[in-house]
Amino acid sequence: MTAIPSLDDLRATFGGRLLTDPTEMAPFLTDWRGKWTGRALAVAQPDRATDVAAVLRWCHEHQVPVVPQGGNTGLSGGSVPDDSGRALLLSLTRLNRVREVDVLNNTLTVEAGVTLAQVQAAALAAERLFPLSLAAKGSCTIGGNLATNAGGVQVLRYGNARELCLGLEVVTAEGELWGGLRALRKDNTGYDLRDLYIGSEGTLGVITAAVLKLFPLPAAQAVALAAVPSPADAVKLLQQAQAVLGAQLTAFELISDTCLGLVEKHVPGSRRPLADAAPWYVLIEASDAEDQSHADAAIEALLESALEQGLASDAAVSSSLAQFEALWALRENISESQGAEGKTIKHDIALPISRIAEFIEATDAAITSTFPSVRLVVFGHLGDGNLHYNLSPAVGRTGAGHAADFLALEAPLNRLVHDAVAARGGSISAEHGLGVLRRDESTRYKSAVELGLMRALKDALDPLGLMNPGKFLG
Amino acid sequence: MTAIPSLDDLRATFGGRLLTDPTEMAPFLTDWRGKWTGRALAVAQPDRATDVAAVLRWCHEHQVPVVPQGGNTGLSGGSVPDDSGRALLLSLTRLNRVREVDVLNNTLTVEAGVTLAQVQAAALAAERLFPLSLAAKGSCTIGGNLATNAGGVQVLRYGNARELCLGLEVVTAEGELWGGLRALRKDNTGYDLRDLYIGSEGTLGVITAAVLKLFPLPAAQAVALAAVPSPADAVKLLQQAQAVLGAQLTAFELISDTCLGLVEKHVPGSRRPLADAAPWYVLIEASDAEDQSHADAAIEALLESALEQGLASDAAVSSSLAQFEALWALRENISESQGAEGKTIKHDIALPISRIAEFIEATDAAITSTFPSVRLVVFGHLGDGNLHYNLSPAVGRTGAGHAADFLALEAPLNRLVHDAVAARGGSISAEHGLGVLRRDESTRYKSAVELGLMRALKDALDPLGLMNPGKFLG
Repeated sequence: MTAIPSLDDLRATFGGRLLTDPTEMAPFLTDWRGKWTGRALAVAQPDRATDVAAVLRWCHEHQVPVVPQGGNTGLSGGSVPDDSGRALLLSLTRLNRVREVDVLNNTLTVEAGVTLAQVQAAALAAERLFPLSLAAKGSCTIGGNLATNAGGVQVLRYGNARELCLGLEVVTAEGELWGGLRALRKDNTGYDLRDLYIGSEGTLGVITAAVLKLFPLPAAQAVALAAVPSPADAVKLLQQAQAVLGAQLTAFELISDTCLGLVEKHVPGSRRPLADAAPWYVLIEASDAEDQSHADAAIEALLESALEQGLASDAAVSSSLAQFEALWALRENISESQGAEGKTIKHDIALPISRIAEFIEATDAAITSTFPSVRLVVFGHLGDGNLHYNLSPAVGRTGAGHAADFLALEAPLNRLVHDAVAARGGSISAEHGLGVLRRDESTRYKSAVELGLMRALKDALDPLGLMNPGKFLG
Repeated sequence: MTAIPSLDDLRATFGGRLLTDPTEMAPFLTDWRGKWTGRALAVAQPDRATDVAAVLRWCHEHQVPVVPQGGNTGLSGGSVPDDSGRALLLSLTRLNRVREVDVLNNTLTVEAGVTLAQVQAAALAAERLFPLSLAAKGSCTIGGNLATNAGGVQVLRYGNARELCLGLEVVTAEGELWGGLRALRKDNTGYDLRDLYIGSEGTLGVITAAVLKLFPLPAAQAVALAAVPSPADAVKLLQQAQAVLGAQLTAFELISDTCLGLVEKHVPGSRRPLADAAPWYVLIEASDAEDQSHADAAIEALLESALEQGLASDAAVSSSLAQFEALWALRENISESQGAEGKTIKHDIALPISRIAEFIEATDAAITSTFPSVRLVVFGHLGDGNLHYNLSPAVGRTGAGHAADFLALEAPLNRLVHDAVAARGGSISAEHGLGVLRRDESTRYKSAVELGLMRALKDALDPLGLMNPGKFLG
């Protein structure tokens, strides 16, 4: 290990801010939920991509580890340094320029620190849609969204962050600037560097700007909540929605009755819109290029057919913007409502859609028989095969003692759930990434060949092992 | 260099065929157009992925270069060995099993040697669409399609081969089998190995199987041919088509009048469907989840508006399957008709759509002023920003002497066209790959940083440099 080099030297190399005051640094060293806290040598906030390159050259020269950070809103601890205090925290939030809006090409070129809400607003100002959307959109940055390959509710139609990006500008671990900001739908001239950096969680290099895809704004949208007897019926209804709505189908979410109950309990003014309770619900969104009546007719025809076949027992369709938002709020408030019930154990898993119903049945049964003190709070993006298979303490088990007992079950519950996922060809991190939360587990579920290939790529692009240490392969 | 090892030894290591007879080997050593011919140590035709692994382990042990080959239908010479005779030709055509059809998950798992037509048929048998389609579909294999990230006419809606693949099985350069056949829409657990192998043209490893995405079959389709005054008007019409048709827009092709004239001349029974000639045409396809009348109404409304605004001067819409096919045949027969006119010089380029009209104007002018003996035969996938910016000898310049004169212009014409593409942020190979055709030019248009990163990946995954030598970075 080399001695810690002079920060005055670093400060002189780049345009931007270098924070060393502990109070100023504190917000960068803890994630927003307060689950992980680390220490850092300093916080660098460069102004431009060339400044990022200067910072990384300095780090490379002095063998200083680097933790890149966007909006610091991740759920897996990927943007927080370890507690060694050796790493430089590299905040990208000052790279916040919209560089180009190309309406004819349906592309937007933005710097990494632009927030997702600002990206959406820039698209809307050009009468276009940027479809990626997350709860943290006001704080999360597009650089972080791409570094973690963020998902969200419209992946079914538009894809993950990966599918929404055409080109990248990246600073390598050695401080070189790769200008890959291509605004092209087709380019077969060599290896796909873009997709290698996307989803690499800052462990290979630092994304400083991106070319994003834009889409036409839908003319109208409609949303429905349908009560369904079982996850298997929900999957059958998804099939029919895909056939009937085609690409008009922009969201298909599964929600357990437990989830809706928690929202009703904790969110003032919210209520189930259907008269009778059902064990499961699906939220279906249609986006239409024609008009509102066409959107409504399509989703109503789908529901009518589902009711006739017994795939749904009841359904409500939005007939105003307020109702549209109220139905979506039921889905969007689940996570917060679960939090209000006490400690949580969360699993962000993906499965082949054909395996989901049987997975839920088998895993629910295994948990309720082995862990009676645990409550299932299951919802997710059924159209993507992505479940938030979450757990809370059973009803009535509140208080500090119960919380500790519950959290003591985290390791065996993770093992049970993730083994069940792996046995069905699934993923233990669908959209939240590995960070520190799933770092060690990820190696359990990957073959030696796959880990070997990924290690070879890590060593090729970050030979000194400086990029985001303590995270994937670090 | 080591001595050439015993082929008997190789033959004993794997299940499948090993060809050494020159007559039997010949079809594997020349591309289908006869532009490139090489030599090989032998042709190995393994039966299964584990046999491919055995072949590659033997090659790695004996440092024998390997040229992977699918249907040998590429346009850039990527599947033909050099003339050293040192390489083993590895044909994947005997890996031809459909491993799994998962209708509920909308996925199909196939081995690399299954032809594209067979993939389409397997999807259709499950009442699903696999949207990738190319002229060579009866012969090209899905492994080759993925290794070259093939494009085609429906990329606008469904994406390139890359976007149609969820998971891969790959044999590495060292002969290890990576089982990455995930049938998941979301998986954020490490680096994106899948997209690194896709488009790498056999220079990093060998794809042996893939999980492909399926889509609902459209209920109806309609196609229109519209005469447009200029490429700039075609781009404006594309914008309107995207707004009005949304994801129903499944193809948007640009065709010059010269192209249609060649088809009329060389393809018996074909004729322009519009009364008056125009300099340019667009072919627009709408695919509909509802029914034929809805599809027809949508495309007719678009054309009516375009005629009113002067973006189109005339238009014809298909009103039967025969007309649908006849209109598509005008587009699909361009390449063959151009070939019937003599030698060709072709450019498969991509540009931001906002730069295409100006590119065509400037490049057409530069070529006609500097190279009066050259005729422009321009068409392509306008919706993807992908032009086949092709050239033929001027009218009347037939015969061997003229052909030689024409081909002598290939290097300066390539330079002119590709420099114009690069100046506008474009790509010199949109969908055909680099192979040997664009291998050397690719390095001219890439930065040292980009080439350095790609070289690092090549060295990491193929440290002995055995995979497809003489192609990209080989």
